[in-house]
Amino acid sequence: MPSLELIFLGTGTSQGVPVIGCDCEVCLSTDSRDKRTRTSVLVKTPELHFVIDTTPEFRIQCLREGVKRLDAALITHPHTDHVMGFDDMRRFCEMEDRKMPVFASAPTMEQLHSTFRYAFDHPQTWRNYLRLAPEVITGPFQLGETTVVPVNLPHGKINTTGYVFHRGGKKLLAYFTDCSGLPPEAVEAAGGVEVLIVDALRDTPHPTHMTFEQAYEAIAMVKPERSYLIHVCHDISHAAREGSLPSGCNLAYDGLKIRVGE
Amino acid sequence: MPSLELIFLGTGTSQGVPVIGCDCEVCLSTDSRDKRTRTSVLVKTPELHFVIDTTPEFRIQCLREGVKRLDAALITHPHTDHVMGFDDMRRFCEMEDRKMPVFASAPTMEQLHSTFRYAFDHPQTWRNYLRLAPEVITGPFQLGETTVVPVNLPHGKINTTGYVFHRGGKKLLAYFTDCSGLPPEAVEAAGGVEVLIVDALRDTPHPTHMTFEQAYEAIAMVKPERSYLIHVCHDISHAAREGSLPSGCNLAYDGLKIRVGE
Repeated sequence: MPSLELIFLGTGTSQGVPVIGCDCEVCLSTDSRDKRTRTSVLVKTPELHFVIDTTPEFRIQCLREGVKRLDAALITHPHTDHVMGFDDMRRFCEMEDRKMPVFASAPTMEQLHSTFRYAFDHPQTWRNYLRLAPEVITGPFQLGETTVVPVNLPHGKINTTGYVFHRGGKKLLAYFTDCSGLPPEAVEAAGGVEVLIVDALRDTPHPTHMTFEQAYEAIAMVKPERSYLIHVCHDISHAAREGSLPSGCNLAYDGLKIRVGE
Repeated sequence: MPSLELIFLGTGTSQGVPVIGCDCEVCLSTDSRDKRTRTSVLVKTPELHFVIDTTPEFRIQCLREGVKRLDAALITHPHTDHVMGFDDMRRFCEMEDRKMPVFASAPTMEQLHSTFRYAFDHPQTWRNYLRLAPEVITGPFQLGETTVVPVNLPHGKINTTGYVFHRGGKKLLAYFTDCSGLPPEAVEAAGGVEVLIVDALRDTPHPTHMTFEQAYEAIAMVKPERSYLIHVCHDISHAAREGSLPSGCNLAYDGLKIRVGE
């Protein structure tokens, strides 16, 4: 019962990889793991399938992975690289003739409202239009048998929402993208989780993202069984980097599938 | 001097082709011309390169066509399938260390402002952020040696902006996407143009788009030398359809390149 299946839909930073007009070694790499669309993950439970963030490449990610079902979307924050595929959820509304539940913090929902005004202010009845059931997060919530615990993470002038997923009394997964560090509440919420997925942008400091070293420190505090690094910068070669990761730590790549809680 | 080079970046309707979860013959087709990203065109003149609309797949379209330079964007209307790649223009701001001129009608610019509030309300000085130079269209304007004549086209509750391009005293190109018909002013503005690019969604009537038959009637009124149909629905097979088009009329496909004014 506790199991989850995860598909990394995208693992790249805001510009994706390859970057337009860039001729660095990684952007020119032929290793498919170096082709990164923007960061998102599909979580499949026995009773529900949900996505965390809807990137500009959401449609292409769904086609690549053969995604034909979606029951909810959880949004971490409204930056363009995380939400601009939002309207493409219309297809899942059409196929199941349903509204799409969308979970987000109040400030994130407010910006989604501004960005996708037509869908929030003028609910459509046409079967193939985006029909929303917005759910502003105020605390832990249920998605079928999964309990979702939201935590605030610092990301420059805003907070992003990290999500910790529990099933059958087990702390299975923590998803912490786009953050400059983990506050004590996040470490507490995720502590001892089976899988931690966490932001690791690059080696040099960035004001709103963690470096690889900072991500390693975060992992050391959370003490997950396994960890996966996401939102990786364009010049990080998968093959060159994967050999230098700490034990239990992995570099995610687009299309990677993992199981949790088995 | 009058020549233009056009690259069809995308030619598909709002859901693209293949459509998520669709197993119709065209969505499963292996003909590359049946793989349609959302509708957009890159126009290259000797002195300036500009894009019409920035679709969700704008980044992927630029990578596919090796686009390394962009001097301006013209937006037809703010529906998601035409604008959600807007932020990816940041890379062209970064490469040339410049603001990106964006041309749009007042209502379109107002919606772009709401959607991309961060870029309009909080201008960035960081080199790799989207930096805008918005230009609200009030009448014909110049892009280098090109005179651009905007016209209003009906598209349900809104107008889209059609663009007619003149160079060296010649009427070279009219771009009329997302419209349910051509009003007399549009026929007049485009009359006798060398190339007309025009909306043709499907065979059955649609409230906001033209059918193939309506597009043929529009072409007969405008009398271009050549025409190209765009914004085509997912179940229109390129191979099956191209044989039944009127003389001088072509079905565009992603990656098609044409020259105008030679």
